[in-house]
Amino acid sequence: MLRLYYTADTCSLASHIALNDAGAEYTTVRISFAAEEQRKPEYLAINPKGRVPALVTDRGVLTETPAILAFIAQSYPKARMAPLDDPFRLAQVQAFNLYLCATLHVAHSHRMRGSRWADEAASIADMQRKVPESVGACYRLIEDSLPAGPWVMGEAYTICDPYLFTMAQWMEADGVDPARFPKVSDHRRRMSERPQVRATIEEELT
Amino acid sequence: MLRLYYTADTCSLASHIALNDAGAEYTTVRISFAAEEQRKPEYLAINPKGRVPALVTDRGVLTETPAILAFIAQSYPKARMAPLDDPFRLAQVQAFNLYLCATLHVAHSHRMRGSRWADEAASIADMQRKVPESVGACYRLIEDSLPAGPWVMGEAYTICDPYLFTMAQWMEADGVDPARFPKVSDHRRRMSERPQVRATIEEELT
Repeated sequence: MLRLYYTADTCSLASHIALNDAGAEYTTVRISFAAEEQRKPEYLAINPKGRVPALVTDRGVLTETPAILAFIAQSYPKARMAPLDDPFRLAQVQAFNLYLCATLHVAHSHRMRGSRWADEAASIADMQRKVPESVGACYRLIEDSLPAGPWVMGEAYTICDPYLFTMAQWMEADGVDPARFPKVSDHRRRMSERPQVRATIEEELT
Repeated sequence: MLRLYYTADTCSLASHIALNDAGAEYTTVRISFAAEEQRKPEYLAINPKGRVPALVTDRGVLTETPAILAFIAQSYPKARMAPLDDPFRLAQVQAFNLYLCATLHVAHSHRMRGSRWADEAASIADMQRKVPESVGACYRLIEDSLPAGPWVMGEAYTICDPYLFTMAQWMEADGVDPARFPKVSDHRRRMSERPQVRATIEEELT
């Protein structure tokens, strides 16, 4: 059975929602960042990157959110969470998720993880000050590219949806006013009403 | 026909090599970062992100290297550049490329693109000083995870190979000593001997 290592309020929420969307059987293990469990030998043996999520399968461990999301979509094709047989549409799905992963999440990470890229306290404070602007610029690009909806790819719900929802949970803390991005905000509300999303969040918080 | 927008000495080299590996028919357009062509309206109309690569297809534009690489693999299945029908192995391929994209390339970008994440000159200089350490840590993780070879995924050449090769071209400029990473260095040498790689680099430099 699949086993998801996750931390509440992190990007692992996207994979967790997707597992519920897919109707997958899985168990979870909570990793506490407060207790720095992600850097302990027990966890590094599972994921040497010291990050979440990690998805343990019967063939080995998978990491990196867009890769895990695509794995879930391909493993549970009946859930129709990605246009698996259309190389162009699938690449659009992946490109959307890549932007969240490598640009939006990276911009966000400069608020609390600046020590990955600089040492001085003044530099880290400078990075923190810029987060509303850099994260806001990402949401501007996303807002301008989103179709009418209801989902990121239009009519079809895909693995883009739990991932955007997960990132959008951080807007306020990143100093970005959701009112500037009505399509993103509508999407967030729509996602928050899905039973799978509610169940996942409840599971992570209890 | 496919049209690749690229800039020499950037991550677009990976997609360019993969097109040649696949035997794809394509044309190229060179975007000069020196002339800031990536920020001009003509290019932003193609890729609003103002980055390379962008791959124009007859159905629209694709961006983000791991998405483009997977598109090439799926569009040219005879080239066998990814384990398309094996969700776990494909996710391993994607996870490797995701790490290059969202961790290694991001660490590297703090050397020349620090202004994305901070404003003060002192912060940007601080970021630059840390690049040998942060990029070096990425290569340590990659080196420790690479199989005996000859390729990133073992016996089979995949879309991981042109991407790792592309990143590894920047090691010296990032202050990382290739001698510390013999498997990465062997891979780089092996790639540089491939006719498709030589042809691609020659095309980009002339």
